[in-house]
Amino acid sequence: MTGAPRTVDWDGDAIALIDQTRLPGELVIVRVTDVDSLIDAIQRLVVRGAPAIGVAGAFGVALAARAAAGGGAPATDAVAQLRAARPTAVNLARQVDRAAARLGDGFDAVLAEACAIRDEEIAASHAMGERGADLVAQLIPSHAARVMTICNTGGLATVERGTALAVVQTLHERGALAEALPLETRPLLQGARLTTWELERMGAPYRLVVDAAGPALLASGAADVVLTGADRVAANGDVANKIGTFALALGAQHAGVPFVVVAPESTVDAATYSGSDVVIEERDEGEVLAFGATPVAADGARAANPAFDVTPASLITALVTESRVVRLDRGEQL
Amino acid sequence: MTGAPRTVDWDGDAIALIDQTRLPGELVIVRVTDVDSLIDAIQRLVVRGAPAIGVAGAFGVALAARAAAGGGAPATDAVAQLRAARPTAVNLARQVDRAAARLGDGFDAVLAEACAIRDEEIAASHAMGERGADLVAQLIPSHAARVMTICNTGGLATVERGTALAVVQTLHERGALAEALPLETRPLLQGARLTTWELERMGAPYRLVVDAAGPALLASGAADVVLTGADRVAANGDVANKIGTFALALGAQHAGVPFVVVAPESTVDAATYSGSDVVIEERDEGEVLAFGATPVAADGARAANPAFDVTPASLITALVTESRVVRLDRGEQL
Repeated sequence: MTGAPRTVDWDGDAIALIDQTRLPGELVIVRVTDVDSLIDAIQRLVVRGAPAIGVAGAFGVALAARAAAGGGAPATDAVAQLRAARPTAVNLARQVDRAAARLGDGFDAVLAEACAIRDEEIAASHAMGERGADLVAQLIPSHAARVMTICNTGGLATVERGTALAVVQTLHERGALAEALPLETRPLLQGARLTTWELERMGAPYRLVVDAAGPALLASGAADVVLTGADRVAANGDVANKIGTFALALGAQHAGVPFVVVAPESTVDAATYSGSDVVIEERDEGEVLAFGATPVAADGARAANPAFDVTPASLITALVTESRVVRLDRGEQL
Repeated sequence: MTGAPRTVDWDGDAIALIDQTRLPGELVIVRVTDVDSLIDAIQRLVVRGAPAIGVAGAFGVALAARAAAGGGAPATDAVAQLRAARPTAVNLARQVDRAAARLGDGFDAVLAEACAIRDEEIAASHAMGERGADLVAQLIPSHAARVMTICNTGGLATVERGTALAVVQTLHERGALAEALPLETRPLLQGARLTTWELERMGAPYRLVVDAAGPALLASGAADVVLTGADRVAANGDVANKIGTFALALGAQHAGVPFVVVAPESTVDAATYSGSDVVIEERDEGEVLAFGATPVAADGARAANPAFDVTPASLITALVTESRVVRLDRGEQL
């Protein structure tokens, strides 16, 4: 993504976000100057992806500090609302809290902390790409890898490069990627809209598939490894991630294909004991019942729309972070 | 569906089809008077569902017989093209062959055979509904059932009432349905577009869910049983059905939820030894890459689009047909 705008960044006096609701059609940067607008952007998925909303949240604390210094409401109120804008990913609350710990030192200190968080996430993405590609080379020593992914785990989910898709990019840069098989990721099609856009930019070979085809394609031998991101990694190794991750893990287990979770340490939450302690966000049923303004179901239809699921540690081969590879399949603990 | 038009029927001098590409927005009947138009309708999914395309194919042989009697091409050529219009469901080739066996006796004999096939499928749907509901009552004796389904297996997949959704309808008529959880069934959304339309018509309680949520909802205890249809049941009990069925079967196994396949005997194919012998239709990538005329992926994106998958008999609790319940989980053979 060198030369391309960052997914989230500080731009003079505002947060600059790539508007992910407009992709792949248009690359639009939106500038956010107040916390209410940032909460709206996070909830509408203008910015999404656990590490990215963590960084955005940290910059949001800087907005709150500036508003309070200018005579607005106390920053603590805005910060409390911001950290609760989305419940499942731990990164948002964690990075908001980290930046908010500097509120007593003023706007400049908060902004410096947020920039540090941004820079650490960038470094983490590069390191995850390297560690993950090394692991894939160990797991699949004989040939270039065919990699299945879900949702968007690229630069658009972080600041640059990504988590699982950073590994795909590193493999591609090493000449070790045979094909990526991104799942489209209903209902909001982050895999179709965002991941194909990033794969096109990196010039990597891929074919998009519907979510329901993932386990069947694994059973037919179409992929060598599954790489996913995470919204929260519990202390016992359970992983909360985009809805459909669990189904893919079942498919990988059935096919004997390694299932690897790639996420920065900022996503690992020692305070969450297991997956059953994670709050799964239930999003609006309209996301399922219509495509844009076009209804896809009968008049009067209702829907359930859980946005995440939990994959038990027992189905996970390894967790890759910027600093370690935890082989859950060998009984290693976080 | 009493009082409603049949999904497929003979209407004086033409085949009358509900145009399933127009639902749920509009209920439109199309009249088909030649085999080429019927092949097009089958391939565009104007009519779909294994039993329904079997009946449509049988009526198509009558169209071929009439054309040949009127001086057109030999019926055998048209019949050969018709039986190969879609490869995965056995019903099309089987019912075309059955009707074509009467070609030597003329148009009236072929039409009579096609009408007999239609009537047998109607009777089969009623019987499957009763047998399936009885089985669900045995499997879930303590409370009204919460039933997960995939694709459309209702009257729109047959002539009337359906296969798996006939069981849902019978349960609802008995007051034994707590909730249906239809999967939307990407890429063509037969579950969203067609199954919700049928559930609304029967006044049954339901919530639509994305395909990827099926296994996770089963793991969370949201459903008591999974009911699916089939496009082909192999001699060893393996089932070819809509893509995503296999993932749902893995989810059911993981959750300890019964997984029941409901299909007429016309779908059981003793000549197909196992699921690996079934030809899986690969459909156009455009179905995945765009929603109607709106692209959902990046410019230049490619897709793989397998329309069906194979669920091994080892994951199936029971097969319900109009004449028997085969408890595959107890080692019973077809």
